[in-house]
Amino acid sequence: MESSMSDLNSHHHHCVEISMEVHKVVPPPHRSTLEKLKTRLKETFFPDDPLRQFQGQTRKTKWILGAQYVFPILQWGPNYSFQLLKSDVVSGLTIASLAIPQGISYAKLANLPPIVGLYSSFVPPLVYAVLGSSRDLAVGPVSIASLIMGSMLREEVSPSNDPLLFLQLAFSSTFFAGVFQASLGILRLGFIIDFLSKATLIGFMAGAAIIVSLQQLKALLGIKNFTKQMGLVPVLSSVFHHKDEWSWQTILMGVCFLVALLLARHISMRRPKLFWVSAGAPLASVIFSTLLVFAFKAQNHGISVIGKLQQGLNPPSWNMLHFHGSHLGLIMKTGLITGIISLTEGIAVGRTFAALKNYQVDGNKEMIAIGMMNIVGSSTSCYVTTGAFSRSAVNHNAGAKTAVSNIIMAVTVMVTLLLLMPLFQYTPNVILGAIIVTAVVGLIDIPAAYYIWKIDKFDFLVMLCAFFGVIFISVQGGLAIAVGLSIFKILMQITRPKTVMVGNIAGTDIYRDIHHYKEATTVPGFLILSIESPINFANTTYLNERILRWIEDYEAEEDTKKQQSLRFIVLDLSPVSSIDTSGVSLFKELRKAVEKKGIEASTLELQSSIGEVIEKLQRADEDRDLSRPDCLFLTVGEAVASLVSTVKAQSSSHI
Amino acid sequence: MESSMSDLNSHHHHCVEISMEVHKVVPPPHRSTLEKLKTRLKETFFPDDPLRQFQGQTRKTKWILGAQYVFPILQWGPNYSFQLLKSDVVSGLTIASLAIPQGISYAKLANLPPIVGLYSSFVPPLVYAVLGSSRDLAVGPVSIASLIMGSMLREEVSPSNDPLLFLQLAFSSTFFAGVFQASLGILRLGFIIDFLSKATLIGFMAGAAIIVSLQQLKALLGIKNFTKQMGLVPVLSSVFHHKDEWSWQTILMGVCFLVALLLARHISMRRPKLFWVSAGAPLASVIFSTLLVFAFKAQNHGISVIGKLQQGLNPPSWNMLHFHGSHLGLIMKTGLITGIISLTEGIAVGRTFAALKNYQVDGNKEMIAIGMMNIVGSSTSCYVTTGAFSRSAVNHNAGAKTAVSNIIMAVTVMVTLLLLMPLFQYTPNVILGAIIVTAVVGLIDIPAAYYIWKIDKFDFLVMLCAFFGVIFISVQGGLAIAVGLSIFKILMQITRPKTVMVGNIAGTDIYRDIHHYKEATTVPGFLILSIESPINFANTTYLNERILRWIEDYEAEEDTKKQQSLRFIVLDLSPVSSIDTSGVSLFKELRKAVEKKGIEASTLELQSSIGEVIEKLQRADEDRDLSRPDCLFLTVGEAVASLVSTVKAQSSSHI
Repeated sequence: MESSMSDLNSHHHHCVEISMEVHKVVPPPHRSTLEKLKTRLKETFFPDDPLRQFQGQTRKTKWILGAQYVFPILQWGPNYSFQLLKSDVVSGLTIASLAIPQGISYAKLANLPPIVGLYSSFVPPLVYAVLGSSRDLAVGPVSIASLIMGSMLREEVSPSNDPLLFLQLAFSSTFFAGVFQASLGILRLGFIIDFLSKATLIGFMAGAAIIVSLQQLKALLGIKNFTKQMGLVPVLSSVFHHKDEWSWQTILMGVCFLVALLLARHISMRRPKLFWVSAGAPLASVIFSTLLVFAFKAQNHGISVIGKLQQGLNPPSWNMLHFHGSHLGLIMKTGLITGIISLTEGIAVGRTFAALKNYQVDGNKEMIAIGMMNIVGSSTSCYVTTGAFSRSAVNHNAGAKTAVSNIIMAVTVMVTLLLLMPLFQYTPNVILGAIIVTAVVGLIDIPAAYYIWKIDKFDFLVMLCAFFGVIFISVQGGLAIAVGLSIFKILMQITRPKTVMVGNIAGTDIYRDIHHYKEATTVPGFLILSIESPINFANTTYLNERILRWIEDYEAEEDTKKQQSLRFIVLDLSPVSSIDTSGVSLFKELRKAVEKKGIEASTLELQSSIGEVIEKLQRADEDRDLSRPDCLFLTVGEAVASLVSTVKAQSSSHI
Repeated sequence: MESSMSDLNSHHHHCVEISMEVHKVVPPPHRSTLEKLKTRLKETFFPDDPLRQFQGQTRKTKWILGAQYVFPILQWGPNYSFQLLKSDVVSGLTIASLAIPQGISYAKLANLPPIVGLYSSFVPPLVYAVLGSSRDLAVGPVSIASLIMGSMLREEVSPSNDPLLFLQLAFSSTFFAGVFQASLGILRLGFIIDFLSKATLIGFMAGAAIIVSLQQLKALLGIKNFTKQMGLVPVLSSVFHHKDEWSWQTILMGVCFLVALLLARHISMRRPKLFWVSAGAPLASVIFSTLLVFAFKAQNHGISVIGKLQQGLNPPSWNMLHFHGSHLGLIMKTGLITGIISLTEGIAVGRTFAALKNYQVDGNKEMIAIGMMNIVGSSTSCYVTTGAFSRSAVNHNAGAKTAVSNIIMAVTVMVTLLLLMPLFQYTPNVILGAIIVTAVVGLIDIPAAYYIWKIDKFDFLVMLCAFFGVIFISVQGGLAIAVGLSIFKILMQITRPKTVMVGNIAGTDIYRDIHHYKEATTVPGFLILSIESPINFANTTYLNERILRWIEDYEAEEDTKKQQSLRFIVLDLSPVSSIDTSGVSLFKELRKAVEKKGIEASTLELQSSIGEVIEKLQRADEDRDLSRPDCLFLTVGEAVASLVSTVKAQSSSHI
């Protein structure tokens, strides 16, 4: 070890002595357009190189690997042990105790019958256990997707006037959401969800949490005639216009249980070991409040209860799916938006816990799993489901080892569906509201928002737009504005790239921004500019004008500061990661402009390290006036040194 | 000179000796968010710094400069000389001889009365002469904008059944086009037209040229019942379904004149001095063919003629503008699209000739000028106008010196309108068709297409999409597809950035792609990766996975090649021009992942030269684990040298 390191060191000393030699810029090794296209497509659609593990295997192993690739259960199933089962049973029962009350609550949030929420906690977890590659994801309905589905479908169909049609639309939307999710995975277009940036999601989730909480005011205050709109303004005005409907018994009960649930959440957050406090609190609240209502006959004193629930397992629902008719557009739109939102949540949750436990989840495979789960779900009376943030955290804390915890949860829900449904008859709605509020409060992430403010003000603006968009316009509207703004930012950065004047850091070959490094000084007679963005059609016009303005500014200063007249212009293209035909033309035009300026011996030199850029600059040039050997350099230092020596040679020949 | 250059040289020798010293990476000088925002907004909206010339001037000079800024005529007007006038009269008369037949032809292309084309060659050139800053632009109606306006308006209103309403819609669209153009200039949003890349424009113009030429088959073949659609397929099928309507006299006349016109064009292209051949040919053809028709009474032998034309100057038309009503949506859409297309042509022409004569045109000022020209035009019976490619080239070749040539042209057109209109009564339509075909043939630029194919295959694809989109779908459709694809390319480049392994070029401090430079060799124990794109939300997930895969690949090779185990990971961020909050988190996550990997002494080092990136990395970091002094380096060479010496120090302390 010691010897190899000193080798390295001497090697470095060596290089320093001869670094004045100018290195030739060579084009990258030739590759045909087809090869390039293949590489590009592979990097775009198969960045994870899924076929890598199949290389050099026998046919039988390939089959096994293939089956394991499609059904991850075959990967961990054979090694499953009693030890793992013990952990999974504990975590499975824990998340079931959370899943049952949450299922009922979220179904009500989506304007669906409460039992659909339980159905959705039974079939999808089983499907995910077979297809999913995350070990911690706890699957079921989630608040935001429920809210969006409920509010979007309500725009065309009233859930109270035509509950059957509404249910059909919900199942159909779930089907389309599943198809959309699975096809994103199959077509390997998973990067589409990357366009929902962290800032967008934080703003969006906080806004959604507030919208969801506002909806719970109906249950928490005991109001009967609640508005059907979602925005902050209409909900609050509706709440205060129906003050006479407020029921003090409901409010009292709601506040007590809400405080208890928030307290339980607070305890678990402080001490992760006490995760069971917040995990068990919802079920405990449901049982306790149901007993209270039953004991005091509170349903006769202004406290509304769920009422009779159907018993039995999921009925088939494939005959309820709509594939044509007047609502098809709405169904597809709803499916698309709930699909992408729930997919984002599911993938993000999976990745978060995979990173914690140091294993990898395959984004595209997860998309197929979540999509299949929703396709199967839609034909077994389930609405849209995904991996839920809060439930997966509980699952992880409770020590889940594999997807078996999802199976345990599903079995528990099954038992509930078969035997325990009558017990929920007296469960008060106000408790469901309190459970939802407690669950969504965690979606408001103030520290993350502060962190974004600190690092990037524009990201913060995107976040605010998502937040206020959701609250004041609509859930989809807020999301669309934030995504649009994020993309607009990228385009703006490219449309107006920074150009900075760089100078030499005394005593080195390093050239850096002279406004950033005080020790960087300009080289007399040289204007060295660094272009800090890819060069393409969107910015060539700007760059052309901006660089000419730099030259003018330099010439204007010449007279006042009596500095040496401009002789050479060097463009540092190291931050230029790509270039297109317009970009190549830019340099041709700049060269012409510089020549027309008539600056004595003025030339335009380029420096780039990116193969693609060098290749295009060289290919563009049959007249050899852009990339002639003495025009394209490996580093700014070499460009300067070479130009200086050229001038020296010229002036000595004059003598 | 000699001494300063040798100074420089010795200075370079000096630096080489001490370059082993590691330089501290400092954050850029502190600037408040407000200051940054100001700089950013200034660079975005005022890259040309228009107020620069006002600095340090007296109040009177400021007024004069201000007036000159708004009315460029005040700039060159006072110095106007008889010498200049002589050139301008020649060029003005030349373009007038082209403008009269083209005006009539293009108006027919837009389904408007022929005289509107002449009106549009009278008022707008006068407005432009006062407000425009280009000296070569010849203003008037153009083929593509005429085609688009005609075809878009025809979707809702038939020009033959309701000509008055059609005319009103055309004037209203012109008004909105002008308002849109002027507001782009006033709001300094001119960069929007930059999103029409060169590739898009070349494909689009070639497609439009073919569509326009196909429309001329009606006149060239003498067909009476022509289709109203624009696409290649419907037009050709219509042509061959009406074979019985083909008139041999018309075809004969058309072919003769078309050949003559194309020949004239060819001569002028070969010898620019003979510009007057192609410039005068259209008018000569009109006169000659009119005489022919008149002499042989050919209008009675199947050759259709223009017929009686109104006489007199532009009537006012502000009372014909629609600001409400059922067609408002169509009017605004048409205005927007024709506005942006004609603006693009006008600005591109202005810039091309300004670059040839080495003066600058101010894009935003040009937009205001063109916009005002259309606003004024719309209330004086003109339809949409801009600076035309072909006509400006003739103007330039004819020796135009200032915008006075536009005034001369306008006066000539005025004389025509007042006195010569009856002479056009017997002009055959077939000649107008031949003139249009000759004019648009020049829009098909095969060498440019080949050049794009050579440099950038994706740009070529964009071009093809624009071309086939225009031919087979619609003019707007093709344009939208091409622009969408161009933006998609930028986004894809950012979503899937290249990461390359860099190595040391023996004998230097330079690190370059090892697949590009054969002499670049990896440093044992080091994985040095260069990330070639800005880092933001759209690519952090990908980069995370890709970098981890690089590490896995390295470790897999370790065993086979028996190379030194991975000790250090260095990320070269020099091509990373910007970073956002997600990007900052990426490095935190990568560091955690690398630490979890348990690679002995494995650390993640960063190298960047961009102030913004350094600042954000440092600000993100209160725990000082990203940008601690020994983690962020000025160059890759310094990072490697510093790490090597650390290890050396450690291992010598072990001894």
